Amino acid sequence: MLMKNKLISDLKKNIPSSNLLDTLEERYAYAQDATNIRNIKNLPDAVVFVENTEQVQRVVKLANKYKVPIICRGAGTNVVGACTVEHGGIILNFSRMNKILSISKENMTAVVEPGVVLGDLQHEVEKLGLFYPPDPSNLAVSTIGGSIAQSSGGAKSFKYGTTKDYVIDLKVVTADGQILQTGANTIKNATGYNLNTLFVGSEGTLGIVVEATLKLIPKPQSKKVLMAYFDTVKEAVMAVNAVIEQRIYPATIDFMDKNAIQTVERFYPANLLTDKEAALVIEIDGFESSMQYQEDIIINILRICNASAIQASYNDEEYNKIWTARRSSMAACAKLKPNVTTDDVIVPRENLEALVLGIREICEKYNLDVCMVGHVGDGSVHPQIPIDYADEDEYKRYKLAKGEIYDLTAKLGGILSGEHGIGAEKRNHIHKVVNSVALDYMRKIKKTLDPNNILNPYKIF
Amino acid sequence: MLMKNKLISDLKKNIPSSNLLDTLEERYAYAQDATNIRNIKNLPDAVVFVENTEQVQRVVKLANKYKVPIICRGAGTNVVGACTVEHGGIILNFSRMNKILSISKENMTAVVEPGVVLGDLQHEVEKLGLFYPPDPSNLAVSTIGGSIAQSSGGAKSFKYGTTKDYVIDLKVVTADGQILQTGANTIKNATGYNLNTLFVGSEGTLGIVVEATLKLIPKPQSKKVLMAYFDTVKEAVMAVNAVIEQRIYPATIDFMDKNAIQTVERFYPANLLTDKEAALVIEIDGFESSMQYQEDIIINILRICNASAIQASYNDEEYNKIWTARRSSMAACAKLKPNVTTDDVIVPRENLEALVLGIREICEKYNLDVCMVGHVGDGSVHPQIPIDYADEDEYKRYKLAKGEIYDLTAKLGGILSGEHGIGAEKRNHIHKVVNSVALDYMRKIKKTLDPNNILNPYKIF
Repeated sequence: MLMKNKLISDLKKNIPSSNLLDTLEERYAYAQDATNIRNIKNLPDAVVFVENTEQVQRVVKLANKYKVPIICRGAGTNVVGACTVEHGGIILNFSRMNKILSISKENMTAVVEPGVVLGDLQHEVEKLGLFYPPDPSNLAVSTIGGSIAQSSGGAKSFKYGTTKDYVIDLKVVTADGQILQTGANTIKNATGYNLNTLFVGSEGTLGIVVEATLKLIPKPQSKKVLMAYFDTVKEAVMAVNAVIEQRIYPATIDFMDKNAIQTVERFYPANLLTDKEAALVIEIDGFESSMQYQEDIIINILRICNASAIQASYNDEEYNKIWTARRSSMAACAKLKPNVTTDDVIVPRENLEALVLGIREICEKYNLDVCMVGHVGDGSVHPQIPIDYADEDEYKRYKLAKGEIYDLTAKLGGILSGEHGIGAEKRNHIHKVVNSVALDYMRKIKKTLDPNNILNPYKIF
Repeated sequence: MLMKNKLISDLKKNIPSSNLLDTLEERYAYAQDATNIRNIKNLPDAVVFVENTEQVQRVVKLANKYKVPIICRGAGTNVVGACTVEHGGIILNFSRMNKILSISKENMTAVVEPGVVLGDLQHEVEKLGLFYPPDPSNLAVSTIGGSIAQSSGGAKSFKYGTTKDYVIDLKVVTADGQILQTGANTIKNATGYNLNTLFVGSEGTLGIVVEATLKLIPKPQSKKVLMAYFDTVKEAVMAVNAVIEQRIYPATIDFMDKNAIQTVERFYPANLLTDKEAALVIEIDGFESSMQYQEDIIINILRICNASAIQASYNDEEYNKIWTARRSSMAACAKLKPNVTTDDVIVPRENLEALVLGIREICEKYNLDVCMVGHVGDGSVHPQIPIDYADEDEYKRYKLAKGEIYDLTAKLGGILSGEHGIGAEKRNHIHKVVNSVALDYMRKIKKTLDPNNILNPYKIF
């Protein structure tokens, strides 16, 4: 306790008082993230709103002095417990480091602070005819720093990749407080080891990102979304492969099952067809002159695959309506029970049907509701399970179901996370999909880069 | 010497004799790669043609026992001395591990052994309507293993990225002979650290890749190449930015300067216009229905940018003729002097003109010829310098010029390699562009993954 008091008093000497929170209520508010983990028992010792790199370095120095954890936090929207607190320490809040430092039309790059909200960045670059594709569903609030930490993706990953494909340089404060530059302001880089992508997805365990240079691409001229309904999940999943084999490259191939469709329609009516078993949400984009061709080919193959109804967007309003419906799934699900959880298991696409049907079976076995959505073009599925954490029995069934979902994913040659990360929630299962030698080397890398284990300790493994 | 004899005798016990070369002549033949470094003084102790993973593990065990280097080699086409021999040891030749193990149309992935020739893989996947974009100029002979080691790119990197963007899983024999799986057969992965891209571009210094799973994409329906000539380098470079600002996303924007055009035309006549100062080679691709639109926009902006002549391909023959001319630049240059060297410095595109003109100036100052080509859409330039290594004075001037080219690149915010790697050739300059903390962490990672320093030692740094 004396130690903690000394830490706080040292922090107060180094950081302006308006940047520091340390009352019980404040610490409690920052002990949790969007994962909403049951029974949070640990609180941070302090929350620091950093404003610049030098403040980050000062906090790192103190964390080393007192051997306490540093947990970085953007908007706290992650769903794997990546910024929950387990061993006290300091929450490093980046919401005040939220400036877009520059956007270069000529280089097609943007330099940003980690607290920049993803949707804001997209909006700004699109004004210049540029495009930053990663689009997690929470992009209206989630930050670039969090995207980098969790290697986040989104619906457009199928065609455009995830955050790691757009990070070309990071300014990182290392565990010992030095400044490390991972890459360069160039689109290609074969100069030494690929440190960029080592830090992307490392969930704040290897270093603290204080600035990022992102690659941008030209904004596609047109986009259109098609929503195709099916009478069986199997037909929907088979249609995914059939679409891909047409040599069309849709920007997204997303999925909603009957539960997701009905739950969305109940709470956020959008004229979805609630009698259908499944739907695909397919976005095409590109030059205006290619849109009709793409649409014709896709509608034709969807009909061959027994789509029982097809809706299409003919203007921005209709486009937004369909996407808002798809993105509302989690929020709608949250209305069914006090809590809702999601996941992002992913398998080779050939095993997608087995995954979707298997997850349903497991949830039925444990008497759990599940709304299934997912970026099925990638083979990734988000089972959203509404749950009441206060219900001990339900929570126990939920935990058992999760274990079985991960076992199934592993059996199907998949992995536990395509775009959310592992955090605290899945670390006890990671061995099911990552081979022991790889895990051993990951641990060695962690130890090499963070010998005092102060950076978000014990997350991932 | 006794030690070396013991090593050879141990190798003979572990590897079939038909897979082992150890005569002086054979060792000499494998001491060098396409870099053609002057004054090779060191020879490998043996060359082993591995046929499977188990043989690789056996060699690694012996290398650890005798503490000798292992240098992996595919086709030996790299140009930075990445597989030259400096401290004896064993050349691990992968030319017999050259099978395409599977291509999945459904998953859009290919599983290959490292000795597969890149062009062969492209040919096979294209038969199925799929596409593996990385296209280094030597793709008719270079291997996937080498591509992975050097993170190779090519003309299409501008739109499609480099090797690192297509590697989703690697089977790696570690420095202590274990099998490490870096990723999974899934398009996205946020499950633990990004080991895939740590190994891609590590130039054989962190582990030995014995199998790779590659992401494929749908093959674009149409392609067409335009060749635009300019009366000044400045106008050509300015046209690059103008083209990009049209929100067209060409597959390539390549460059040839007057020397390159004239040298190609001299040795491989292709009706290039030899009175022009520079040319851009712009490939557009996509749906047939979008091709005319793209072509019109680009030709229009090229004219606005003062292109003094524009050629276009109207069939496969013309397409191949233009690309063959562009790709023949290095071979043509090689006819001017006994040796030829190339490079792949890269800068933010806003500094491209300064780089191109600066390299010319440096070469003039040191009385060296230079043919300049490059993937200028990326900001990368390949100065190809013909040289006679036997001419001591010329060699000295060449080395001084190289140093100045790297200084200039650093000054312009660029890096030493976009797609060739660092190898032995540029390691003494890497500090000019990679910050000391990053270099220090790269060395720490090397030490962690290869504590006995047996994997291609002293390359990169």
